[in-house]
Formats: sequence, structure tokens, C-alpha cells
Amino acid sequence: MKKVTEFKSLIGTDGGLSVELTPFLQKELQEPLYSQLYHWIKKEIEEGRLLPGMKMPSIRQLKTHLKVSRNTIEAAYQQLQSEGYLESVPKSGIWVAEIEKPLLHTKEVEYLNLPECKSSSNVVVDFEYGNVDLHKFPLKQWKKCLSDAMDWENNWLYEYSEKQGEFKLRREISNHLLESRGVRCSPDQILITSGTQTSVSLICRLLELQEKIVAMEEPGYSGVRSVFIDQGCYIEPVPLEKDGVSIVHIQSSAAKAVYVTPSHQFPFGMVLPISKRLRLLKWAYETGGYIIEDDYDGEFRYRGQPIPSLKSLDEEEKVIYLGTFSKSFLPSVRLSYIVLPPSLIPHYSRKFADYNQSVSPIIQRAIALFMQSGEFERHIRRMRKLYQRKHQALLKSIEQNMGTKVKIIGEKSGLHILLKLKDGSNIELIEKGLQNGVKVYSPLKFWLNPNSEGYSYIMLGFGGLSIEEIERGIQLLADCLP
Amino acid sequence: MKKVTEFKSLIGTDGGLSVELTPFLQKELQEPLYSQLYHWIKKEIEEGRLLPGMKMPSIRQLKTHLKVSRNTIEAAYQQLQSEGYLESVPKSGIWVAEIEKPLLHTKEVEYLNLPECKSSSNVVVDFEYGNVDLHKFPLKQWKKCLSDAMDWENNWLYEYSEKQGEFKLRREISNHLLESRGVRCSPDQILITSGTQTSVSLICRLLELQEKIVAMEEPGYSGVRSVFIDQGCYIEPVPLEKDGVSIVHIQSSAAKAVYVTPSHQFPFGMVLPISKRLRLLKWAYETGGYIIEDDYDGEFRYRGQPIPSLKSLDEEEKVIYLGTFSKSFLPSVRLSYIVLPPSLIPHYSRKFADYNQSVSPIIQRAIALFMQSGEFERHIRRMRKLYQRKHQALLKSIEQNMGTKVKIIGEKSGLHILLKLKDGSNIELIEKGLQNGVKVYSPLKFWLNPNSEGYSYIMLGFGGLSIEEIERGIQLLADCLP
Ligand SMILES: Cc1ncc(COP(=O)(O)O)c(C=O)c1O
Ligand SMILES: Cc1ncc(COP(=O)(O)O)c(C=O)c1O
Repeated sequence: MKKVTEFKSLIGTDGGLSVELTPFLQKELQEPLYSQLYHWIKKEIEEGRLLPGMKMPSIRQLKTHLKVSRNTIEAAYQQLQSEGYLESVPKSGIWVAEIEKPLLHTKEVEYLNLPECKSSSNVVVDFEYGNVDLHKFPLKQWKKCLSDAMDWENNWLYEYSEKQGEFKLRREISNHLLESRGVRCSPDQILITSGTQTSVSLICRLLELQEKIVAMEEPGYSGVRSVFIDQGCYIEPVPLEKDGVSIVHIQSSAAKAVYVTPSHQFPFGMVLPISKRLRLLKWAYETGGYIIEDDYDGEFRYRGQPIPSLKSLDEEEKVIYLGTFSKSFLPSVRLSYIVLPPSLIPHYSRKFADYNQSVSPIIQRAIALFMQSGEFERHIRRMRKLYQRKHQALLKSIEQNMGTKVKIIGEKSGLHILLKLKDGSNIELIEKGLQNGVKVYSPLKFWLNPNSEGYSYIMLGFGGLSIEEIERGIQLLADCLP
Repeated sequence: MKKVTEFKSLIGTDGGLSVELTPFLQKELQEPLYSQLYHWIKKEIEEGRLLPGMKMPSIRQLKTHLKVSRNTIEAAYQQLQSEGYLESVPKSGIWVAEIEKPLLHTKEVEYLNLPECKSSSNVVVDFEYGNVDLHKFPLKQWKKCLSDAMDWENNWLYEYSEKQGEFKLRREISNHLLESRGVRCSPDQILITSGTQTSVSLICRLLELQEKIVAMEEPGYSGVRSVFIDQGCYIEPVPLEKDGVSIVHIQSSAAKAVYVTPSHQFPFGMVLPISKRLRLLKWAYETGGYIIEDDYDGEFRYRGQPIPSLKSLDEEEKVIYLGTFSKSFLPSVRLSYIVLPPSLIPHYSRKFADYNQSVSPIIQRAIALFMQSGEFERHIRRMRKLYQRKHQALLKSIEQNMGTKVKIIGEKSGLHILLKLKDGSNIELIEKGLQNGVKVYSPLKFWLNPNSEGYSYIMLGFGGLSIEEIERGIQLLADCLP
């Protein structure tokens, strides 16, 4: 049974616990009002919507609330008291009484079992992808930004945000992109969104991609693929070559748009070389197609030279750039953005004129302050070093414990790697791992058309693990290899 | 020109101002690396991407970053210094120098003019709809909740949220709905969303309403209508009768779903009587159609008896209930929710398995704490009284200043009213009002098919105005009446 303290009052001025009643009383009916009220409350109690120990509104409160006379309520309450449904406690008020069980035929609210299973309890190390490091997070500074954000100006808190997102945040993002990704854009080109999926869904409607072909890396990020499919796009899976997505394949497709992760192919991790980038841009210029560049973890590159983003190479406004704070800051801010080419802005403004911004300006302003203060860049620098150490520890641990039984894939950047298994399928290893206390994942879902290849990899996310956990996890996993 | 202090460094460990460079250096080329680097930096400066006064990365930093030798960088820097592009300041570092204007052919980033015009400056009172009261807002308590939310548990901050939204918040909402709206539902039926438009967009996909007919009040909330249209639904506009939406019209339509605002029709304000509610439910049971009940401001009712929500009357799981915190709390939390009938949950879980929650769990948890502490119910009680006073002042002011020249529409609840003009069209009054310092709005956009009727109303939102402002505004407006 529900705890009484979970209920709070909507009416009554004393702040005490009492419940709000919403009966429907009809003056036109033959049945007197007090009797209607009596029957209604009785039914609420019998069916368990009013629970023993809940405080009833005072007569005065209920009078104001229901716009009926004092007599009506008194009569109903007295009848209910005499029948034992309510209890009057002097100086305290009127309460729902404990009544015998048989009286009640509570329709128990079912708690449905949703497929939201967390890792089982004997898992010691969980290589889940998507988590970030929590030990070096500047919690104090971030809290201060949250608090300061509420004071920043006067009235904004009580209004809707700017449709594209808070200007101050867009200006900070525009500066950040110039410095760290070579992307030159005005704040007016930036749209704030609540996650990469929201970005992609918006782009589908903006470019009217429904029933159009969208080319996507195969394998690729399933979270985004689902959005394309739900928005009615047809997916053209583009095979990967050693150096990333096959441009020839895109050229021979009828795609209206292509979604790519050039800085760090998801999930394989290769970096698209400059020559392919230029050929991809050429495809867009020649066909009029758009390139959707998802630069989700471009901040975390450990080896090799940086390559300019597609967006920074684009000279004909054909690249739509996607960024997110999920890797560089926290997944739990649910904050991401789109950089549109200027030529698409008027179309966007017209098409989305009726839409409200969906990210809370509280979060937006807090992040803007965090960026403005320099904390964000410092945080990224710190995290890049930290992840690099973790990444090295992971690679070393794999080499030492697994030797030639596996091949490491995508070892240059990001917060995850893939292992290609020399023998056996991942199903077996994942199961054995679980029994041995280590949870690893199959990347199978990242294929639109899964084939046997998908079974020969496992995916290891390491962002949220400590170096000790990484080493322990790899040892546990190594024990499970054939 | 951009201020230098806006730029922060991504590299370098000293926290000083320096920029990150992302040149693309190719070892295979004939041109030596130092020369490639030299040309690249020179171009960045000439084209205004590196600005005078910006600090360059140190040689050591750039060496690590680009994975090239110290010599390469020194050679490039020296050449640039000798040509006057860079300046070395002893004990400080290397900076981009001031160079003569003619050297620069900056592609200035255009700031596009978006249609985001704020009220012109001579407006004294703005009856904009959507704002809420700011004077009685419990800022201190809310800040504490935000801060406490960050401490609540250990790891959640660094992970993605539960897909449906934080359980703690869903539990609080479920309690609140039972007490204040008579809606009995389990937290498992609740989905957290980032605004009513997000809710409706999700429902369209869940019920597969694309290319289906959706019935909607005419006039009705255009923010939601746009979503239906963008999702490919056909809108059947249902005329309003004195007591709300025409049920006969819905019955004779081929609608698969109907969107209604029964507690407080938007924008006309009538309350759908119980008899019509029951007939609407019957329509749903007989045709299998769904009712989408938008209870956006059900908390603020000032006159007449409360009527149970459609959801609380629904016995066959045909009502999808929408709630929002935009009126009862703040528009700027961008927080709303859907209550699904249990029978739709498995379908939801399957269809949206790949989707991340889009509202930051920071906001979700802060609101949950705010509700748990009883602050939320107290806030609503306070606001209800406050809005009631404002509402009364508004009505009184209109009666005194405008007499029979206007008719007040929807005077029982909510944060806005309509005025029907006896003479003339709203265009004239809105324009004259603006000249006289008061901004009022045309509800014309709430009609799918605007007709002359739409011009005979003006809409006054009063949530964000003080009683003095309301009175002043009505006086200013009355002066403009013919
Ligand atoms: C390829 C890719 N893009 C984007 C994201 C981030 O998505 P979001 O911004 O919704 O957190 C991820 C995270 O897993 C990803 O793997
Ligand atoms: C009919 C209606 N529903 C819902 C809302 C609230 O929308 P949201 O939750 O996106 O703030 C409004 C606000 O204007 C409204 O008028």
C-alpha cells in the first residue's frame, strides 16, 4: 500500500497533508448534492483512490473548491464518519479511516515490466558504451554555473526560450567550433537540440527526406538509423573500406543525403582520409545531396594527425554538422546542436516557426556559463588526457592478456574499441564473460543487414571505467577466450 | 572584430589563451611539412580565422598535437614571425600580430536576421500569452533542488537517463495526477517529454497517424496542429459549440484520433460538460479511435465546479493524457509528460526501444525533489490564488473601461482570455494599441481555416503581468476602442 507521506494537498492553506477532490456534482439531478458527494467519496475510498491515513480537505476548503454550501459538505462528511469511512481527530482534521480489507476491491495499479534491465548483480566490470568518467568531473563549478544561470537575467526564466536556443550558448558553441574543429559558423546557423536523435529527426523534416534514400555507413550508429527509418527514409547501407565509407558506393547510389562519422567511424573507429573527404564533398556538389557529418567524439583523438572536419572543407554549403555534449561533457545534459549552412536557414525559419525550443534554457545557460568561464575547455583537456591513459591501459592489457587471439580495431580515438575475435562467435564470449563477471557487448545491432561478420566482434566502452577496472575486466575476459 | 577574450584554448596545459590548430599536413607531398604548416597558418590569419591578439600554441604543445618534429614547427613559426604574421613576446608566448587591413580579406560571417522580433520598445504593457508570474516564484527552494539533484545518487549523472524518464519523477507525477486531476496511473504509464509538441509528435508515431485523419478543435492550439500536419496527418477541424467541441461532428468524421482541451478549451476557454465527455468516450469505444486530452492548465480554475478529466472517466484505455509543467511551474523547464493507457505500453516499448530520453535528468530530478518536498503543491496553491486575483482585476478593469464594447470569453480559468469586439476588426485595435503602448494579439492563427470571425477577437495573456500592469494595459487599450 502506498505510503501516506507521498500524498500532498492541492488545496488548504496550512500546508498540511490533505487531498484534492474532483467530484462532479450536478445541481440538476434529483439526488441531493450532499448525497452525491457522500457517494463519490465513499467510492473513492472503497476503490482505493483515497487511502487510509490521508487527510481530507477541511469543510471550508472544500466549500470554496466545490462552490457548494457548508451544509452540503458537513452532511456528507457526517454520514461518512458515522459509517466509519472517515475519522475526525480533534484539532487535527478529518482523515480517511482504516477500513476492513473486504470492503475494498482495489483495482491494483499494475506495474508493468518494461525491458529496462540493468546489468545483473554479479557483474564486476561493465564495458558499457556511452558512459563518461565521473572522477574528474568539476561538480562544484558546474553546480555554480547551474545556480548562476538562474540569476543571469531577470525575466527569461518565466518565458519560453529562443526557438533556435539561447543566443549566449550558440555564441559559445560557435567559438568552440572555430577553435577546436576549424568550423567557422555564426551563432545564427546553430540550432540547439536535445540529443543527436532529435537533431536527425529535425533534419529529416527540414530536408524532406521522407521516402527518399539516405546513405549510411554499414555498420553505423543504430540510434540515428532508427530515426531515419521512423521518419520514412529508405536506408542505403554503404560498406566500409579499410579507410572508411566507400565513396564509389555513395556515388553510384541515388541518395539524397548521406550520414557519416568521418572523425571516428562508429563503431569501427577509422578516420576518413582527406582524399575521401574531398571526393565526398564533390559528390554532394555534383548531385545536390547533403552530407550529415556527426562529429560526436571529435574531441578525443589520441594518435595521428588531426584532419579538418568535412564542414570546415565545405565550400558550397552542403554539409550539415552535428555536435553533442554527451561525450565532451555529460550524456545527462541531453544537449546537442546542428550547424546548418546559411542557405538552409530561411527554410528552417519558415518550416519551424511554430516550434518551441525543447531544451530547458536553464541547462543551456548553465553550459554557456561553463564554456564562457573556460571550464569547458579545461575539462576537455583533462578528459582527453585521462581517456588517453585509459585507452593505453586498455590496449596494453589486451595485448598482454589476449595476445594474438584478438585484433584491436579503431585504436586511434574515442571512448570505445572493437575486438575482432580470431575464433568463435561473440555470443559465446559474451555469455562466458557474464558468468565470469565481465559484461561486453555485441555490435551486431549496428548492422542494418547483420551477417556473420557482425558476430566476430565485441565492443568495449571504457569511458566510465577506471584503469584498474579496465585491467581487471580484460583479465576476466581473457579467461573466457578459447 | 571579435573580442580576443572569447577564445579559449583546447590545448596547452597552462590555462592561458591559445587556439587549437587543425591543419592537415601530408608527409607524402613534395612540399616540406614546415612549409605546409607555414602556408596554412598564414592563410588562417589572412582570412581572419586567426585574429590579432590570439595566442598561438607553444612549440611543445603543437608538437604533441600534430605529431611532427619540433624543427618543423620552429621553422614555420620563424618564417611567420619574420614576415610579421606572428609576434614573439618574451616570457609570454607567440601571438598573432596586428597586420595591416589590406592584407586581410576576411569573409565576414553573416549574422542572418531571423524573425525573432521582440516587442518594440515603446510598449508599456504586453499581454503576451505563455508567460507566468515571476514575483512569487520560490527561487531559493528551486535552486536548492537543482543543486541537491546533482548529489542525489552517485552515477546517474554520467549515464543516460531511463528511456521513459526518471522513475522518481514519474512516481511524483503519478501521485500528483491522482490527487489533483483524479487520474489514476502507474509511473510505468508515464513518459517524460520536452514540451507538448514533443508529446504529440511521439503519439503520432506511436499510433501511426501518418496519412490518417485527426480531429481537432477549430479554433485550436496551433502549436500542436503544426506537429500533426508535419507528421503527415490530415486535420479535420471540428467546430465549437457554446459548450465546447461538437461531438456530432466528430462522430460523423472518419478520425482515427481526436485532440481536445476539455478542461479549458484553447483558446475559447469553455469547459466540456460531463455529458459531452461521456459521448466523446463512447465515440472512442465504438470506433476504436483515441482521444488525446491536453490538460495544459487544468490547475488554474477559478469558477464553477471541477469536472473529472476525460482520463479519469475512461474505462476502455482510449484516452492519452498530456500534461505540462509550463503553466503550473515554468515554461523554461521544458518538461511535459504523456500518460499512456497500459495497453499501449508494450507497443511503445518496442517501437521506441532505440530512443534516448531527451529531457536532462538534472531537470527531471530537481523537479522530482521539488514535488517530493511539497513545494510544488504549495506553489500551485499560491499561484492559483494569485492568478485568480489577476483574473478578477482583468475582468473588472475590462468591465469598467470597455463596458459593452466588448464581450469577455472564457472567464472561468486559465492564464488568458479572449475579447470579442462589437465593432471593427482586431487589426485596427492591435495597431492602435501598439501606438498607445499596449500589445495585444490576434488569435487568428488558431484557426486552420481563418474566416472573418477570427478577426473579431483579441487575446490577452495575463500570467506574467502585475495587477497594476493589467489595469494600466486595459486603460490604454480602452482608449483605442472606437
Ligand atoms: C555515432 C554517435 N553519435 C552521437 C552520439 C550521441 O548521441 P546523443 O547526443 O543523443 O547523446 C553517440 C552516442 O552514443 C554516437 O555513438
Ligand atoms: C493548448 C496548449 N497546450 C499546451 C501548451 C504548453 O506547451 P508546452 O508544454 O510545450 O510548453 C500550451 C501553451 O501555450 C497550450 O496553449
